[in-house]
Amino acid sequence: MDIIDNAVISQHLSHVRIVMVNTTLPANIGSALRAMKTMGLSKLVLVAPKTYPHPDIDALAAGATDLIDQIEIVETLEQAIKDCHLVFGTSARSRTIPWPLLDARPASQKSMQAVIKDQQEIAIVFGREDRGLTNEELALANYHVTIPVNTDYGVLNVAQAIQVLCYEMRMATLELVEKQVDTQAVMQVTDTDHMHWDEPLVTHEQMEQFYPHFEQMLAEIEFLDPKNPRLLPLRLRRLFGRIQLDKMEYHLLRGIFSRVQALNNGTWKKSQNEDQN
Amino acid sequence: MDIIDNAVISQHLSHVRIVMVNTTLPANIGSALRAMKTMGLSKLVLVAPKTYPHPDIDALAAGATDLIDQIEIVETLEQAIKDCHLVFGTSARSRTIPWPLLDARPASQKSMQAVIKDQQEIAIVFGREDRGLTNEELALANYHVTIPVNTDYGVLNVAQAIQVLCYEMRMATLELVEKQVDTQAVMQVTDTDHMHWDEPLVTHEQMEQFYPHFEQMLAEIEFLDPKNPRLLPLRLRRLFGRIQLDKMEYHLLRGIFSRVQALNNGTWKKSQNEDQN
Repeated sequence: MDIIDNAVISQHLSHVRIVMVNTTLPANIGSALRAMKTMGLSKLVLVAPKTYPHPDIDALAAGATDLIDQIEIVETLEQAIKDCHLVFGTSARSRTIPWPLLDARPASQKSMQAVIKDQQEIAIVFGREDRGLTNEELALANYHVTIPVNTDYGVLNVAQAIQVLCYEMRMATLELVEKQVDTQAVMQVTDTDHMHWDEPLVTHEQMEQFYPHFEQMLAEIEFLDPKNPRLLPLRLRRLFGRIQLDKMEYHLLRGIFSRVQALNNGTWKKSQNEDQN
Repeated sequence: MDIIDNAVISQHLSHVRIVMVNTTLPANIGSALRAMKTMGLSKLVLVAPKTYPHPDIDALAAGATDLIDQIEIVETLEQAIKDCHLVFGTSARSRTIPWPLLDARPASQKSMQAVIKDQQEIAIVFGREDRGLTNEELALANYHVTIPVNTDYGVLNVAQAIQVLCYEMRMATLELVEKQVDTQAVMQVTDTDHMHWDEPLVTHEQMEQFYPHFEQMLAEIEFLDPKNPRLLPLRLRRLFGRIQLDKMEYHLLRGIFSRVQALNNGTWKKSQNEDQN
């Protein structure tokens, strides 16, 4: 993931605009800007905001002042989305108008595919703090999008919903861009790809030297009976097989085995060596 | 997705605790509770909070008062996680100590698999508002977890990070439960993480006896210099922290340490004992 240029991600995300309709609290606009900037989005359109400008916006958008300068203010939702190809209206699950409904994750994946493959412009529309979007506004969307929450409790507020959607947009972009990079580099995709190591992992071949060394040492200190090893070798393989040692760890453990062997056969004695470890 | 019982999701998520260390702003505790409740989590542990209780907590946790009643306050991080099997420390990407690092999504998937299949207890640990977790605290974790953000801008604040992780925990749970519903609880075994163990896994508290024993043994055979241990103790924690030992393996390894100690101090001698292993 580190090979992916941050600027490339932000470039893709510049095609996704956040649209806030009739927002009452300036703090929510500030929080939205911060959430956007953190995830790499840059375009905010305000439809007839109740209070704008306001110092709370700047306070909560700390460090995202470049996004404040780019805010676009319009009078109607139609103006905000007129050049968009794909419009999502955010909505709680149950609505009076039936509409194709996507969860935040597939909605974000669909959006970023449309951006990366077809250079489409995307809008995610968020409603008023108290009553969301009207049915007329929701009918302007191609899809409705919802965030799966604990239905016993209630919905996210607008700032939290923007946070989650911006996060999903970034994750969808990373996934798609990684897939492109992977296809070019023909890289393996496994669970370990999510981990970041400073040392390379050892190979299967190296581990095949590790287990005999471990068992040999255990035999020498008579912890393991080579004639009747029972399940011990298998247990060691199960244990270290799931750990995936890196090279440093591998040499560290083999160094410990060698020390124990030397101690046992008398070639190393306590407090006689100067150079330890 | 609508066929899934919300109570089942919350039941699984009750095994995931959010741990906040030395939190300064009560508003962040309130926001955390709200984020948790929205996503179905219920257990918050505060390690030595700077200000508690405080009316801002109640104000921001609007409607999540049942979670306030369940808050646990402890003095140290160790107390907060002692009965946990899998501990995640939240961290920005670049750190002085190298550790297995997972993004929020795979970390959440790993956690909820561990909960649903093996009834493990999970902790996600969040640090101070200004400087996160110390290296000592991070070394107590099995994994570090990070949220991929726009690196040109900066990191999420603690409330936003909790929001995203709680969301990912819910999504991971929904996915796993849906899969169970789809396949009548017969799940695919793909990698070692999915294995069912015959032995219960050891807890964090037991591992806190394992490391000192290991280090003591290494000091006795002068592989480790207690006055200048360098990175060795940290490397051992990193290595065995990601392995999740079961009880059999734990006793096996401690048995080896004891044998080496006895060999070294002369209480056990080669070929004199009848009963090995």
